[in-house]
Amino acid sequence: MTEKSAKFDKISLGVCYYPEQWDESLWEDDVKRMLDMGIGTVRVAEFAWNVFEPTDGEFTFELFDRFLSIAERLGMRVILGTPTATPPSWLTHKYPEVLNADINGVLLRHGSRRHYNYNSPVYRKYCARIVEKMAEHYGAHPAVAGWQIDNELNAEANHFYSDADSVAFRAFLREKYENLDGLNRAWGTRFWNQTYTDWEEVFVPRKTSNGAVNPHLMLDYLRFISASVIEFVGLQTEILRRHIKNGAFITTNGMFPDIDNHKMTSEKLDFYMYDSYPNFSYGTDGRGGYDYGDFLPDRGVSRDLSVARSISPNFGIMEQQSGANSWNIWGLSPAPKPGQMTLWAMQSIAHGADYVSFFRYRTAAFGTEIYWHGLFDYDNRENRKTAELRGLARISEKLSPVTGKKYRAEFAVLRDYDNIFDSEVDRWHSSVMWESEDGIFRAAELTHTPFDFLYIGERTTVDELAKYPVIFYPHALILTEKTADLLEKYVRGGGKLVLACRTGYKDEHGQCRMMPLPCLASPLVGVDIHDSTAVARGDAITDIIFDGKRISSGIYNDILTPDEGTEVIGTYDGGYYKGSAAVTRHALGDGEVIYFGGTLREDAARAMLEHFSLTEPYADVISIPAVCELAVRGEYMFVLNYAHSASVLTLHRPLENILTDTVESGEVTLPAFGTAVYKMGN
Amino acid sequence: MTEKSAKFDKISLGVCYYPEQWDESLWEDDVKRMLDMGIGTVRVAEFAWNVFEPTDGEFTFELFDRFLSIAERLGMRVILGTPTATPPSWLTHKYPEVLNADINGVLLRHGSRRHYNYNSPVYRKYCARIVEKMAEHYGAHPAVAGWQIDNELNAEANHFYSDADSVAFRAFLREKYENLDGLNRAWGTRFWNQTYTDWEEVFVPRKTSNGAVNPHLMLDYLRFISASVIEFVGLQTEILRRHIKNGAFITTNGMFPDIDNHKMTSEKLDFYMYDSYPNFSYGTDGRGGYDYGDFLPDRGVSRDLSVARSISPNFGIMEQQSGANSWNIWGLSPAPKPGQMTLWAMQSIAHGADYVSFFRYRTAAFGTEIYWHGLFDYDNRENRKTAELRGLARISEKLSPVTGKKYRAEFAVLRDYDNIFDSEVDRWHSSVMWESEDGIFRAAELTHTPFDFLYIGERTTVDELAKYPVIFYPHALILTEKTADLLEKYVRGGGKLVLACRTGYKDEHGQCRMMPLPCLASPLVGVDIHDSTAVARGDAITDIIFDGKRISSGIYNDILTPDEGTEVIGTYDGGYYKGSAAVTRHALGDGEVIYFGGTLREDAARAMLEHFSLTEPYADVISIPAVCELAVRGEYMFVLNYAHSASVLTLHRPLENILTDTVESGEVTLPAFGTAVYKMGN
Amino acid sequence: MTEKSAKFDKISLGVCYYPEQWDESLWEDDVKRMLDMGIGTVRVAEFAWNVFEPTDGEFTFELFDRFLSIAERLGMRVILGTPTATPPSWLTHKYPEVLNADINGVLLRHGSRRHYNYNSPVYRKYCARIVEKMAEHYGAHPAVAGWQIDNELNAEANHFYSDADSVAFRAFLREKYENLDGLNRAWGTRFWNQTYTDWEEVFVPRKTSNGAVNPHLMLDYLRFISASVIEFVGLQTEILRRHIKNGAFITTNGMFPDIDNHKMTSEKLDFYMYDSYPNFSYGTDGRGGYDYGDFLPDRGVSRDLSVARSISPNFGIMEQQSGANSWNIWGLSPAPKPGQMTLWAMQSIAHGADYVSFFRYRTAAFGTEIYWHGLFDYDNRENRKTAELRGLARISEKLSPVTGKKYRAEFAVLRDYDNIFDSEVDRWHSSVMWESEDGIFRAAELTHTPFDFLYIGERTTVDELAKYPVIFYPHALILTEKTADLLEKYVRGGGKLVLACRTGYKDEHGQCRMMPLPCLASPLVGVDIHDSTAVARGDAITDIIFDGKRISSGIYNDILTPDEGTEVIGTYDGGYYKGSAAVTRHALGDGEVIYFGGTLREDAARAMLEHFSLTEPYADVISIPAVCELAVRGEYMFVLNYAHSASVLTLHRPLENILTDTVESGEVTLPAFGTAVYKMGN
Repeated sequence: MTEKSAKFDKISLGVCYYPEQWDESLWEDDVKRMLDMGIGTVRVAEFAWNVFEPTDGEFTFELFDRFLSIAERLGMRVILGTPTATPPSWLTHKYPEVLNADINGVLLRHGSRRHYNYNSPVYRKYCARIVEKMAEHYGAHPAVAGWQIDNELNAEANHFYSDADSVAFRAFLREKYENLDGLNRAWGTRFWNQTYTDWEEVFVPRKTSNGAVNPHLMLDYLRFISASVIEFVGLQTEILRRHIKNGAFITTNGMFPDIDNHKMTSEKLDFYMYDSYPNFSYGTDGRGGYDYGDFLPDRGVSRDLSVARSISPNFGIMEQQSGANSWNIWGLSPAPKPGQMTLWAMQSIAHGADYVSFFRYRTAAFGTEIYWHGLFDYDNRENRKTAELRGLARISEKLSPVTGKKYRAEFAVLRDYDNIFDSEVDRWHSSVMWESEDGIFRAAELTHTPFDFLYIGERTTVDELAKYPVIFYPHALILTEKTADLLEKYVRGGGKLVLACRTGYKDEHGQCRMMPLPCLASPLVGVDIHDSTAVARGDAITDIIFDGKRISSGIYNDILTPDEGTEVIGTYDGGYYKGSAAVTRHALGDGEVIYFGGTLREDAARAMLEHFSLTEPYADVISIPAVCELAVRGEYMFVLNYAHSASVLTLHRPLENILTDTVESGEVTLPAFGTAVYKMGN
Repeated sequence: MTEKSAKFDKISLGVCYYPEQWDESLWEDDVKRMLDMGIGTVRVAEFAWNVFEPTDGEFTFELFDRFLSIAERLGMRVILGTPTATPPSWLTHKYPEVLNADINGVLLRHGSRRHYNYNSPVYRKYCARIVEKMAEHYGAHPAVAGWQIDNELNAEANHFYSDADSVAFRAFLREKYENLDGLNRAWGTRFWNQTYTDWEEVFVPRKTSNGAVNPHLMLDYLRFISASVIEFVGLQTEILRRHIKNGAFITTNGMFPDIDNHKMTSEKLDFYMYDSYPNFSYGTDGRGGYDYGDFLPDRGVSRDLSVARSISPNFGIMEQQSGANSWNIWGLSPAPKPGQMTLWAMQSIAHGADYVSFFRYRTAAFGTEIYWHGLFDYDNRENRKTAELRGLARISEKLSPVTGKKYRAEFAVLRDYDNIFDSEVDRWHSSVMWESEDGIFRAAELTHTPFDFLYIGERTTVDELAKYPVIFYPHALILTEKTADLLEKYVRGGGKLVLACRTGYKDEHGQCRMMPLPCLASPLVGVDIHDSTAVARGDAITDIIFDGKRISSGIYNDILTPDEGTEVIGTYDGGYYKGSAAVTRHALGDGEVIYFGGTLREDAARAMLEHFSLTEPYADVISIPAVCELAVRGEYMFVLNYAHSASVLTLHRPLENILTDTVESGEVTLPAFGTAVYKMGN
Repeated sequence: MTEKSAKFDKISLGVCYYPEQWDESLWEDDVKRMLDMGIGTVRVAEFAWNVFEPTDGEFTFELFDRFLSIAERLGMRVILGTPTATPPSWLTHKYPEVLNADINGVLLRHGSRRHYNYNSPVYRKYCARIVEKMAEHYGAHPAVAGWQIDNELNAEANHFYSDADSVAFRAFLREKYENLDGLNRAWGTRFWNQTYTDWEEVFVPRKTSNGAVNPHLMLDYLRFISASVIEFVGLQTEILRRHIKNGAFITTNGMFPDIDNHKMTSEKLDFYMYDSYPNFSYGTDGRGGYDYGDFLPDRGVSRDLSVARSISPNFGIMEQQSGANSWNIWGLSPAPKPGQMTLWAMQSIAHGADYVSFFRYRTAAFGTEIYWHGLFDYDNRENRKTAELRGLARISEKLSPVTGKKYRAEFAVLRDYDNIFDSEVDRWHSSVMWESEDGIFRAAELTHTPFDFLYIGERTTVDELAKYPVIFYPHALILTEKTADLLEKYVRGGGKLVLACRTGYKDEHGQCRMMPLPCLASPLVGVDIHDSTAVARGDAITDIIFDGKRISSGIYNDILTPDEGTEVIGTYDGGYYKGSAAVTRHALGDGEVIYFGGTLREDAARAMLEHFSLTEPYADVISIPAVCELAVRGEYMFVLNYAHSASVLTLHRPLENILTDTVESGEVTLPAFGTAVYKMGN
């Protein structure tokens, strides 16, 4: 894949702003204050369709013309959003077929957002027209630095059940399978008498008895959703690229399910932008997304940031948290503590963001998001958040040399969309996958071992893998010959590969292979699996003895029969398979493959990292308590203190903290939520 | 508002009866037994539409004529219900448009109750006709003492989603806003591109992505529901008043959400009646409505009774619990313990009820409510409940002098429908509001401090407030200039006002004001609020030090900056704002305003009551354990023992217990569920 | 009822197989391996409609002809399923009216199973045609030993809401009630104004406000569902019987709600077959059906097996668990432990199964059930499950003398479909019924007291009851005169009958009788009940003192007033009714009736069993720990060890273990999951 990375001159700050929501008399003061605080870019217009097209076919640009002329005059750069996330009321009322529906066929009506479907020909026509009009009008505008397509694609809804989706799904499947025989085979429709005899019988998922939908259909359906998103984005980027000036970029924002973001970014966009809301982990009513127990609540966002980095090594944050986040109907979110807003911005930068744009300038005074707070509150007065923002602007100047520097990882975790989508369809898949993903993430964080995600696909080369001495690919249930080959080349070339239970037994349709497990991975791992089991409610403990330590065997256990020449390095210490091989090591070429029979809980993942001597890679330079995160961009080492109290680092040699322009050594105290950035000899 | 209070000759008893459900041979014996037990009034007919109109347009009154002639002959007074809560099958089958629907548009079908919508022109026509026919026929009937409109308005469903509701909602909004510009402004439709361009685009809430509905629309929608109810009631009362004899009253029953009961009673009815089911708090499957922990399960009903009293100082109980309460599909409700039925009736009377009508005479032998027990069970034999009823009849004679006496409160809690409705729409609002409401109620109950609710609105005068030395108005998020003025006048005139966090930042549309918090309340409270936060999961304790005591700061904390002249009387003792002002006192005119930065949990509310020396106002007369409730009507003091065992009171001077005609003094033992009523020197 | 019992030559093994799902090249090897393992029968075709009829009216039998000719050649017996559980896509697409719907009217679409409704004339026509075609073609086939109708009737959905169901429901009701007056009376439609004036107003349950549906309608609706199933089965059996050869049997499989399996089997089938999946009790995500705490997880299946036995004293298992069970969308089921598959098969046999067919031969490689494991896994290799199967085949040879032997019970628990259906409708009914059912089952299991279920109905004779010295009929809320007579005859003839709280107050419509409780049971039990109550949240303990022991009074308590001559043998020791009679004994004729005022929790049920000296009936022969189950068929005593470790039995005299052909005595160790079968002197 073509690497699409953001190219900003320097690490810089932005903000999201809604001129259409405020009295025009406020605009100039608002822009001036942004600039005064150190904000150089503002995103606007992504929910403003009816400002541009108040009725069907009537276009007007006056409001944003006036705002952009202020921006231009004062030297503010503008990112323009295409407004397709919220169709106008006149449109959805006239053409209800543009709406998404729930699985029962009930349409999702006007008033929320993202209630449209990607495949309605009517909606595509209207979207193309508004984008074309905006592109014609603003494509060459001097203030416009870039464009955002739509807003948070697949947020609010990532499954689509409209009639238009069924029509498009059929076209997608005809292209893929040519005829129904191919589809019937790929979907195993001989099971439960599902054979299709006419394309018109094929639908996106609908209500069924007990919710059972053919899993192979589901897998294709998720691929179809991703393709629909990318096609919808492409429809807009194709128009924009015909109109926009040189140097203006096209991106979109947010990370939501059922999109191949790598493909979308590679084929359609210039780089990727993420929306970062770590405060979700402190919410009071169960909408929190990142609960990692004692140490890792907001730090869990680093995982998503690592994904963002895998798409664009340098990326942007389009929406960075600046206050409490709730809708009127859910959440009673606390305000970020003093220092947290800065910490979370530094977290983004530490992981590769060179642009950080805060959401939003001023809290909305009306609508669903009156509690999704901005830098300014309703009262429009300077406050501790705006003070932090000013401080961050000063820091970002100091961070100038970090611009464009790449994150340095010690190992990689492989992912691919086939397995990600399959894990949504398959409860066994998701159970093992997320347990190991969580375990590896926690172990890496707590041992300060930076790692990358590497998403592999059709065009992945062994060179991309070879950058990493060690790779985890824990539960690739779907394993194609191509991927098996790629992995073998990596290992033979000296790579160390860790696979875990349930690897390899599915083909690209999610059908099971009639082969001894781990199927195509067998030559790679040098084990045979005759038996395996979930660890049931009330089962005896089935720990593993590995490197003399007792570690968890996790939620599912493969019982391993090593081939000759395969070394047993861990054995089960419980269950009916006590004493059986649990972890094996298979030397292959210049590398080796570890097969871990269970799932990688934190302790097991940590044991693996220690086995490869990956933990605490900077132990000679610095000692860091577990509550702090370590991240390295080029020769710059970030240490972030997520604790709500001060933490003490120990520098084993003097290092320059570029934020304070001082050389520090020995015990150094980081305040609550504080960050240090040390320049190492590169 | 015009005060609409019940005017009964004496505290008297009634019962609910369904002649149409029993063999006619039982009627006369049933009425005789009622009279023999001391029951002088019977409510009938509220679910009997098809008895009067068995098919469309065919009217017959024979069944109830026969029943009423028995009543007349034996001297039983009758309350007639209009039967509109349960439309006949022939009607809903022929005109499905009369039905309510769920938010997905699925109609709620025949067989339950309250499945109609208020706004169907067809339904209104049919309702008007049946009410007119009944009024013509029975308006002058000597046995008929009063009329009940419909039954438990807004029970079963308080949201309405039929097509007719959307049509009526548009009319309501056109009347309110004149044009769409006004509506678009009031609803902040610039947020998420919601601008309406045609009235036909406006609907009652419909299914949306992630359930987001414009909050300002929701606020108007709840007002619309309330208006729909009142208009529907008015349609019936207008007809009734043309036909009914002098002295016959019109009322309705029950307390359910989304109705301005004060307006409804003031404009349409003669007085208010409540349905009291304290046994809900002892249910075994989660339908209990009143869970107040150790002491206050069934006693929680006193809060609703206080609301009833705020509508009609003397009110009636149309349905007073007489047995276990369950539907066939939920609940496994215990029978009331011996004495509880009497206790709960005394609870009603202590709070101002002068009429107590039991539900129901005899348990239904069929239908959904075979477990909603009456005085008699299926076997129709005298039992411990009928014995209690006879005892209660004797007591009610003793209570004769209490008739028409008003409840005497030590302070008031203000409420208004704008904020009540907004709390349904806004999760932050409901979170703070109900925590403080519960805290104040608990503190008042446990310190035997009688209080009133005072609902304020357009026509509230300062005199109504001035009756109370102290007023709590904890979280008026919506605060209009009119209300701010009213409060200021109250304080300047010598009143003591307690406000709490998040006061005042919304206007009447629920939009946030661009002013320093607490906005219009600022001059009143003399504080400025620069920062505030929810207290998050895992946050450090943020207690308040107040009057030398440590009290809870609750779920949300405003951090206060006192104006000059405003006294800090409490400070936070935790969180990042430790040491900041938490509670302030602002002298204004002859009064003062306390601003409490948090929410009023029981301990904090109690500290406030103690601060004003309000607790235990009758301590010189009597000492009462916390498990007993104190209520005062005129010169009569009720002491109610909710404990399941005996409690001991201490009378500090001799008082006459009018229930026993004895003078008591010193230690007095109240049996489990017992009540004493002492005559004080008024 | 005619007893319909399976008549197999010997206890034999089978398997379920799907030739249409596998490459044809595997078939012969598969059948040979089955035979080699000891499997003599294979079930096929129950989901293969489109294999037979790929498009509307085009029939082809080639695939199964080829498979059956292999079976015939190799000597494998075949059970053919009629494929009506999964209609073809071409059918449901062309005729959506054949589909079932949810209560909102949303159709359940193609792709799952059992998405049809029983009453669609179109579906019946298509079913009749495919069954006729199959019967014509295979009726005389030498390999075909029997037929299975459809598959797991009422699984996935047991409620039906299609338009066709409403039409058929009306016909069912017209037949039952002749006219609407009868229906209105039976359903008590005077409650809540539900009177019907036209048959077209009557529907199967639809969405209503708060889910209230007339309970008497619901009771008839469940009877209607059962009748619909039986009629649908009859439609098929009538066709089959015209075509199939002598000796071929007709059955169906599985036990699901809302079917009178006794009537269905008696009138339409040759015998009953059950599907046994004890591993559900070890599932990890809440779909487990049999959670009996410490000892009784998988052993809970014995209760269903006892029901199967009540239908056919010797029955078959059509699907016996052979591996982990999950759908792709739920469950993370463990593999059965080594030995468990055999244990569960022995459990089936111990309860009367003479045929045990495993589900399935090889795990599906595609579709919803890729984790519903078979004997072989995807890799098609021999494994520990196939090894167990071979062992079981050897055991089944040893069990040859047990063939056709009947289970020997010490007492019976009565059931009837009116009360079972009513318990689905009535929360009070289900609460008391299932608490006592569970208590009796647990007490019987843990004291090794074999018992039978006896389902009584219109044609039950006193002789059927008289086989049991003691009968429990704990909560017959519905009690007809006929049943009361039957019970009285049983008691007068010497039977001992245990009834419990809430007996007898409903008639056959579920309406309450206007009589003193326990109504028609009063003369039988000799008590009068003036008061009763659920035991509420937070109520004081209301134990019973019985036979000097303190036992639980359960969830609901009748307070008993014994008639003269009725002996009080238990009294309440708590609550407001402390000291009242809780358990009574009424001698009647040669027998007696115990009335237990509460519900029979395990300790209370055990006390009852001990009262009648029923526990440990083989104590003179053997002592068995509670973790083992005892079952007796004829003179053969099965001891099954459900524990995950070895258990020790003590034989008090030497007995032959027919599985090992050894005589054992004294302490004998049963391994984990082991079974012993001892021959007693009969």
